[in-house]
Amino acid sequence: MKEYIKLEVKMLSEFSTGVLCKLGVPHEDAEIVTRVLIAADQMGINSHGLQRLKRYTNGLQMGVMKPVADFKILKETPNTLLVSGGDGLGQVIAYRTMKLVINKALKNNVAFAAVRDSNHYGMAGYYPMMAVKQDLIGISVTNSTPLVVPTHGTKTLLGTNPISIAFPAGKEQPVVLDMATSTVPSGKLEVYKREGKKMPENWAVDEFGKPAQDIAKVQANWREKKGGGLLPLGGINEEGGGHKGFGLSFMVDILSGVLSGSEFGPNLYAKKDAPPKVSHFFGAIRIDSFISTSLFKNILDNYITTLRNSDKVNGQQRIFVHGEKESELFHKQQHELLLYNKVVEELRELGDKFQLPAPF
Amino acid sequence: MKEYIKLEVKMLSEFSTGVLCKLGVPHEDAEIVTRVLIAADQMGINSHGLQRLKRYTNGLQMGVMKPVADFKILKETPNTLLVSGGDGLGQVIAYRTMKLVINKALKNNVAFAAVRDSNHYGMAGYYPMMAVKQDLIGISVTNSTPLVVPTHGTKTLLGTNPISIAFPAGKEQPVVLDMATSTVPSGKLEVYKREGKKMPENWAVDEFGKPAQDIAKVQANWREKKGGGLLPLGGINEEGGGHKGFGLSFMVDILSGVLSGSEFGPNLYAKKDAPPKVSHFFGAIRIDSFISTSLFKNILDNYITTLRNSDKVNGQQRIFVHGEKESELFHKQQHELLLYNKVVEELRELGDKFQLPAPF
Repeated sequence: MKEYIKLEVKMLSEFSTGVLCKLGVPHEDAEIVTRVLIAADQMGINSHGLQRLKRYTNGLQMGVMKPVADFKILKETPNTLLVSGGDGLGQVIAYRTMKLVINKALKNNVAFAAVRDSNHYGMAGYYPMMAVKQDLIGISVTNSTPLVVPTHGTKTLLGTNPISIAFPAGKEQPVVLDMATSTVPSGKLEVYKREGKKMPENWAVDEFGKPAQDIAKVQANWREKKGGGLLPLGGINEEGGGHKGFGLSFMVDILSGVLSGSEFGPNLYAKKDAPPKVSHFFGAIRIDSFISTSLFKNILDNYITTLRNSDKVNGQQRIFVHGEKESELFHKQQHELLLYNKVVEELRELGDKFQLPAPF
Repeated sequence: MKEYIKLEVKMLSEFSTGVLCKLGVPHEDAEIVTRVLIAADQMGINSHGLQRLKRYTNGLQMGVMKPVADFKILKETPNTLLVSGGDGLGQVIAYRTMKLVINKALKNNVAFAAVRDSNHYGMAGYYPMMAVKQDLIGISVTNSTPLVVPTHGTKTLLGTNPISIAFPAGKEQPVVLDMATSTVPSGKLEVYKREGKKMPENWAVDEFGKPAQDIAKVQANWREKKGGGLLPLGGINEEGGGHKGFGLSFMVDILSGVLSGSEFGPNLYAKKDAPPKVSHFFGAIRIDSFISTSLFKNILDNYITTLRNSDKVNGQQRIFVHGEKESELFHKQQHELLLYNKVVEELRELGDKFQLPAPF
């Protein structure tokens, strides 16, 4: 049995858009969601790709995600925005907000937006990359399902709260940092479980805060809200720097949940039948407010080359700059991409469920 | 023999200011440097406290730090600044720039500054705390001596490049994240060596990129530029998230060295007798451009209380919020502070050297 199936991007796009439209999502919005999901698959970030479509259709059916979002600007200055996403689809809310942020930054050098009443917005890096296309520095962070314990704690009070920032380069591909502030995102546990691999010590703890070995048990503890969960980047204690990952996650949530006047940490996804109250924070900075964009790109190209050409550890072929692996995969998978066969199966089931038979 | 000596803050301040003045630093500037150094000691961050004074006097004597800085604004918009510090004292350059950033943010919601031609600026967290006093969110990052290897590399191409961000709270103390993007800053190795402790696996590597055990050897490798050095936050490989710490350090340097059009990574401190070409990046954001400051503070207070009151790992008494330990120590050491006796000895030697006998 093959584990991965190669499928046409165009076909997948039409299918995903069609499914979302069947649930009342306007065509243009369905296309935005689909574009963000498929970009993740094309970059090999499958945890944030089409495998999310099922969850989104569930959310739309349960009514915790609104197919037609009441996107509202609650407050505005030349450099800032406070947005309510009206519990719509996260990608649509994020895409629209980032466009506004980009326009403000182009006019006024720097702009930020805090966004409340949203949902899962897919890969954090998509939105900074929109800014990079306009020669801006782009920033995006979001709070998320509480799965992470603070240093010295046993309860999950924080999300894996990713940080993404992207910078345009010249001859090189843009630098795109897109990282969960936990050691690993929750999807990584799923991958290790599937492959029967042992979980490293600094990934997760059990309900007593001791290093966890059993992935299924960690996941059961989440479901049963028993405590225990993912560890912040840096691991279990201060000696390894775990309080730093905790701090980064906390920072993301202050910029997202607190600065938008909404919910924080353990209060996200708190009620099963209610909108999860996810918040985001976006930013864009004009490079040429500081130095010429071409000088910036030249120096960054040199920096990337310096890193790439430096001496490697025995057995390692490359020093990867952030976004490099993903950009290479994206170019390889522009027209056809690989999907895990279980995901393809799920997509086919969605097609049957919504009377839109999958053409694959 | 006592390891720490308790000394009066007022006496230390006058002494440190006096020493800097003897080297041609204007009185006001000497006071700024002293204030930033002593604040670090008061917070227990001794690695960035008065123990730096000797290095600064060396730098001033060698001419790689200018006592009278030619602080120049190279470019300016209502929201941004590009500054050249004229190779002056880092604290003076950083303090002046942060004041300008704060004023711009108060007028225009958001402001950033990229700063070139500077020196070591002390603790990163000092400057965001200046913003917090005006009810702003404050940001400060800096590049620094290349002591960190990138993931899969053996050469030190990056600094410990700290990130600091601070948020005002209501009844609670401000949240102040101030973290090196390496697992530990280099000063931590010194502490472990002194105490004869074994270095954990994810702190440093030898010249072949293998986990290092011998602290003296790592330090010798730095001096001899043999390779090997500190590991990024997350440790040696991608499984532990080391590429994330690497990415954060890289991000800091792009915002500092690249965006200011100056030097990056391995090019800092490259020539012994020349200015080190350190760069910084500062920011401030008006909270009330988004929501009322009082609502922000209320939510953040609740968040802090939620974290503090949550279940702890067996044997742990507290979950610390970032800046909490430092703020407690600061209040305890407002009038008198503890200094390591070796540092006091060095200060006395400086006093003799510059004909300003230490009154302690």
